[in-house]
Amino acid sequence: MAGSSFGKLFKITTWGESHGKAIGVVVDGCPAGLPLCEEDIQIFLNRRKPGQSKFTTPRKESDTVEILSGVFEGKTTGTPISMVVWNEDQRSRDYGDIATYYRPGHADYPFDEKYGFRDYRGGGRSSGRETIGRVAAGAIAVKLLNEMGIDFLTYSESIGPVSIDKSRFSVNEIYNNSLYMPDAVAAASAASYLEELIAEKNSCGGVIYCEVTGLPVGLGEPVFDKIDANLAKAMFSIGSVKGFEIGDGFDVARATGLENNDAFCVADSCTTSSSKGRIAKATNHSGGTLGGMTDSAPLTMRVAIKPTPSIASVQKTVNKDGEEIEIAIKGRHDPIIVPRAVVVVEAMAAITILDAVLENMGSRMDKILEFYK
Amino acid sequence: MAGSSFGKLFKITTWGESHGKAIGVVVDGCPAGLPLCEEDIQIFLNRRKPGQSKFTTPRKESDTVEILSGVFEGKTTGTPISMVVWNEDQRSRDYGDIATYYRPGHADYPFDEKYGFRDYRGGGRSSGRETIGRVAAGAIAVKLLNEMGIDFLTYSESIGPVSIDKSRFSVNEIYNNSLYMPDAVAAASAASYLEELIAEKNSCGGVIYCEVTGLPVGLGEPVFDKIDANLAKAMFSIGSVKGFEIGDGFDVARATGLENNDAFCVADSCTTSSSKGRIAKATNHSGGTLGGMTDSAPLTMRVAIKPTPSIASVQKTVNKDGEEIEIAIKGRHDPIIVPRAVVVVEAMAAITILDAVLENMGSRMDKILEFYK
Amino acid sequence: MAGSSFGKLFKITTWGESHGKAIGVVVDGCPAGLPLCEEDIQIFLNRRKPGQSKFTTPRKESDTVEILSGVFEGKTTGTPISMVVWNEDQRSRDYGDIATYYRPGHADYPFDEKYGFRDYRGGGRSSGRETIGRVAAGAIAVKLLNEMGIDFLTYSESIGPVSIDKSRFSVNEIYNNSLYMPDAVAAASAASYLEELIAEKNSCGGVIYCEVTGLPVGLGEPVFDKIDANLAKAMFSIGSVKGFEIGDGFDVARATGLENNDAFCVADSCTTSSSKGRIAKATNHSGGTLGGMTDSAPLTMRVAIKPTPSIASVQKTVNKDGEEIEIAIKGRHDPIIVPRAVVVVEAMAAITILDAVLENMGSRMDKILEFYK
Amino acid sequence: MAGSSFGKLFKITTWGESHGKAIGVVVDGCPAGLPLCEEDIQIFLNRRKPGQSKFTTPRKESDTVEILSGVFEGKTTGTPISMVVWNEDQRSRDYGDIATYYRPGHADYPFDEKYGFRDYRGGGRSSGRETIGRVAAGAIAVKLLNEMGIDFLTYSESIGPVSIDKSRFSVNEIYNNSLYMPDAVAAASAASYLEELIAEKNSCGGVIYCEVTGLPVGLGEPVFDKIDANLAKAMFSIGSVKGFEIGDGFDVARATGLENNDAFCVADSCTTSSSKGRIAKATNHSGGTLGGMTDSAPLTMRVAIKPTPSIASVQKTVNKDGEEIEIAIKGRHDPIIVPRAVVVVEAMAAITILDAVLENMGSRMDKILEFYK
Repeated sequence: MAGSSFGKLFKITTWGESHGKAIGVVVDGCPAGLPLCEEDIQIFLNRRKPGQSKFTTPRKESDTVEILSGVFEGKTTGTPISMVVWNEDQRSRDYGDIATYYRPGHADYPFDEKYGFRDYRGGGRSSGRETIGRVAAGAIAVKLLNEMGIDFLTYSESIGPVSIDKSRFSVNEIYNNSLYMPDAVAAASAASYLEELIAEKNSCGGVIYCEVTGLPVGLGEPVFDKIDANLAKAMFSIGSVKGFEIGDGFDVARATGLENNDAFCVADSCTTSSSKGRIAKATNHSGGTLGGMTDSAPLTMRVAIKPTPSIASVQKTVNKDGEEIEIAIKGRHDPIIVPRAVVVVEAMAAITILDAVLENMGSRMDKILEFYK
Repeated sequence: MAGSSFGKLFKITTWGESHGKAIGVVVDGCPAGLPLCEEDIQIFLNRRKPGQSKFTTPRKESDTVEILSGVFEGKTTGTPISMVVWNEDQRSRDYGDIATYYRPGHADYPFDEKYGFRDYRGGGRSSGRETIGRVAAGAIAVKLLNEMGIDFLTYSESIGPVSIDKSRFSVNEIYNNSLYMPDAVAAASAASYLEELIAEKNSCGGVIYCEVTGLPVGLGEPVFDKIDANLAKAMFSIGSVKGFEIGDGFDVARATGLENNDAFCVADSCTTSSSKGRIAKATNHSGGTLGGMTDSAPLTMRVAIKPTPSIASVQKTVNKDGEEIEIAIKGRHDPIIVPRAVVVVEAMAAITILDAVLENMGSRMDKILEFYK
Repeated sequence: MAGSSFGKLFKITTWGESHGKAIGVVVDGCPAGLPLCEEDIQIFLNRRKPGQSKFTTPRKESDTVEILSGVFEGKTTGTPISMVVWNEDQRSRDYGDIATYYRPGHADYPFDEKYGFRDYRGGGRSSGRETIGRVAAGAIAVKLLNEMGIDFLTYSESIGPVSIDKSRFSVNEIYNNSLYMPDAVAAASAASYLEELIAEKNSCGGVIYCEVTGLPVGLGEPVFDKIDANLAKAMFSIGSVKGFEIGDGFDVARATGLENNDAFCVADSCTTSSSKGRIAKATNHSGGTLGGMTDSAPLTMRVAIKPTPSIASVQKTVNKDGEEIEIAIKGRHDPIIVPRAVVVVEAMAAITILDAVLENMGSRMDKILEFYK
Repeated sequence: MAGSSFGKLFKITTWGESHGKAIGVVVDGCPAGLPLCEEDIQIFLNRRKPGQSKFTTPRKESDTVEILSGVFEGKTTGTPISMVVWNEDQRSRDYGDIATYYRPGHADYPFDEKYGFRDYRGGGRSSGRETIGRVAAGAIAVKLLNEMGIDFLTYSESIGPVSIDKSRFSVNEIYNNSLYMPDAVAAASAASYLEELIAEKNSCGGVIYCEVTGLPVGLGEPVFDKIDANLAKAMFSIGSVKGFEIGDGFDVARATGLENNDAFCVADSCTTSSSKGRIAKATNHSGGTLGGMTDSAPLTMRVAIKPTPSIASVQKTVNKDGEEIEIAIKGRHDPIIVPRAVVVVEAMAAITILDAVLENMGSRMDKILEFYK
């Protein structure tokens, strides 16, 4: 499993199991001189913390972050930033059941086949708690990118069958409801739907939207390390993600070239532009990338999240002895992952973009000579 | 642009521009002892070759592959396999026009911003011809995986508004029409639609479907290098891809947990199973992965391809002097990329899976001791 | 500084500063099923712990390791193993002096130029304490390799002008003296020399020897990832290393081909052989590698370590204001790094070899088919 | 053998066997805008070309390079630069002998064990011809670094027992003799020695020295990616290298701290300085690095090369049937590799340093903000 690292120049390595001692991350390659304190990280972790509404697991965790290295006198030093969150809720409990069978929708079976056995306490390494490390690292990336004028807007676009109505869109509303939806009416409707699901011992999925503005033109490398490709990997590395779109996404399959091509225009005359360049685009079907590089328009992405697989309803499965059995998973789980995954999507987007920002610096001879003169 | 390599153990590096001398690929990390000849590669390249129907560019290229290294006495030696395809159709032509402005939907503008200038002959490095290297490498990966009992089925699922009807599904039909659709009626309908588009100087997109069967359980690494994540990157690294789904994809956002969870069953009693394991799944909403690892069911993926951006209709854009102008791109281009991209999708899937096959070998102490005893 | 990771499949990431909260390492890619507990690690850490003899810094540190993840019910799970050692001796002290000038032989000046400022408490990231993470990771690698029958022998070959005499070589003696020399007479002589140096406020260097036996033939990849090349990087990544040799090292420059070539022989007839293969070598000038791959004979290496740069004698340097000044570094420091670096060399060798063991598994088609059948 | 690539941002991938169709390299990550033509590469290749003196193999090869991609209108475009040299001297010959046994000092035996068989024509992938790709890539790196004011001086320091005398050192002499020695008297003496060896059907080794001046301070990453560590890997990845030193190398093992520490001084007052910084060093025992980063002084390195293993004298070995036999290798081979390896050492040094130049650009927040403002 040498797959716990992500990024090339701004590189994160996460570690930890849901019911082990702690969860953590090492951030390597963070530029020196960024003002940073634990509160900067904590604000982000609080956005994914459990126990904040009736739609999240009641597991009691303060998820308090501790920075162990890489920051000195309030600034990053350029050395690895090690961050840890101690698991508080590791109380001894009876895992006997889930140790003996394979939960549908979970990684239990492939884990056993791949490694010969597994840490059967909770989700182990495949738990949503693994994303704590991503969010902590992402908080640093967002802070650094903000200083460059790059901003993120991320929210729940739909929950189950309930989608936001763009005519009611309100940025302020996002943090005003526990579902992180930018539409109060949709949020209320989604909340009702979720209460029904809880009563039915069921769960649902949804879609997260992320938009990044203020980007320099030309970030991303044109072939395999397209900014699109690295974002796709970033998002699909989040557990429960089953779909990813940039710009118009699957709608392009039905569009024509005339509809889908974005006309270029002079930046000053384009009202839609958030571009830093002299040229902008009149529309943004491409979602801010052309040929794998940022194209002056905002990056826009959509991520599809599957329903929480842990449900209390009766399900069919197989146990370790190879017998078909019926199970009902105990305990109360989040009926929806989407709201808590919003900040994870933002974190992964920021980590990916910061990496592209750093790699792009060596693209041109003239700029290298200028840098080192 | 240190982004021309893909893969960790089975690693490919592509090079070449559409109007340079040649296009090629170096495949590093191919296991020794695989029977291989140029014809094995050529069969795959012929599936993406231009000039095969009225829906592909009439550019004259035989796309004949030459193996320059890494094969000895008919077998791979374990050393890098270098393959080259010479560009035949590089005749001097007037590129003056496209050198001076930015084509909508193309990478021209970000290229100029990132690198200071660009090779303006055709698509340069962003041309579809770059995928020749991927297909050549993918042919090797498919051949090796076939020997392990892993098989690929890839086709056009929809072209513009025309989707296949599963009741008419026929594997044999795929290679029977120039659109690689497994439904003769849909293929005919799509062909009519494309002829209209050609007349209108327009183009369209579509969706490619890929399914992989016969996979061992447990391929993929559970966190960032999930098989899903690496496939997502692989697909989004193909030019013109705007969406990617595994299994039910975006439909999971509307499903409930009860609907979406796949029940496990004993393999012998599961008619749906292509599993090599003792356990299988009754359904396959997950698309063959759980926790980032193969789960016994076939891997199923969908890729959304945008309409060809090169269209002959009049479009608005900006030239290098920063003036807004109107253009009409000369020459005849593919009105649709989808059919020729089918084999590219298959190639990238195979390259990704072979890499996971190799990395997975070091997962367990008992198997390592057995290997080296 | 995205350079805190080492290895490709068995990958370690170290973090921490000498006077920060803690020092640690994340080991990713460790195969599942290896029995492991903290005591296995502690034995190795104790070999580099300070305060064990008059030749090491009296800094009080128990260097007690804590495993935070990746081990369950006494065995590795295949997930990242996070280990931490808390810095106990962080007492507030006056660093005012060393914050204002550049110590000769230390990284202070390049750190300031590269990052704009530095953590001036002790060596910061460049402290020898960084090697705690390497040793903890190396303990795991050695344990795993031992189970495969691969063994390590590492010791101080010379200290300053005092070299061991092979006629007095005794493996047992290595752990019998605080200098880790396999020759009691040389150890006594070196101890006298070091006492003189302490009196003179001076320090010295030395050479560490490492030998690895029981290796399968063919480990290492023939071009850039030669086992020699990866070992060379591993060793030169240790602070204070200025030279590295494999086999006869610099002596080959004066040898002839007839002298330097090792004749092959049938393993049964070779008394010198530790080979697992059917063929062995009559001599081992090559140090166990040919063409970058293990060749049946033991790997033999030598590492040159420079004198401790922190000395109490008066030295000339420049301060941050650009003025030439004279300094005398306060506190007592190790007059020699060599004995404590012995286990660091062994750790880095083991990490490198384990990575090669894992990568080698995918070299041959026949073995892959056998593995997955 | 996924080990045919070197470098992180400036990345090279070599391919080809000594008796295959061609030898080549793909250079990925070269910044755009560097003036480049085939003649720039050819000058470097000519320094390693065979058949130039009586001390090199008479194999007839013009080693003419062809650039296949990545250069447009005389400048690099930022896309991969693919270069090829066709093998001219592939005439059918009788390899029957060397196919059946294992040549001492060669990679034949480990190759067979690792891969199951090998390309037995000449050295295959382990041939010195593999370095053609390195030299071609290195020529680009040197040209780029020269434009930054970074210069290389590389020569043969000793051949067998004959070392240069520094009192006779002459830069001009290096290219004046076929052994690339900067001392005419030593070159003549070495030539006599080599003639004796040829008569005796024997060969010898030597030492190559490389010095790099004009470096910015702070190149290299402080832990595993120290500039020293990456150079060590670069050099040990060259076939036949058995030892590597930076600065005083193995001599530090006998030095004291007072002798070995380099005092810092104000650059203007240091006659020895080639530093671009405000501070320099009075001496350069460290060889230009401190803590893994360039320290203002020139980088100085020494590489030990073993004697050519192909000798015509009778040697003992084992054949594929496991029988002990006596052999005498036919054909005439270089009695010394050193002179032709001089340019390979320079190439690998330049590739390593350029990679560090690019990675270093993202080290500081203030410089990133300045770059993107």
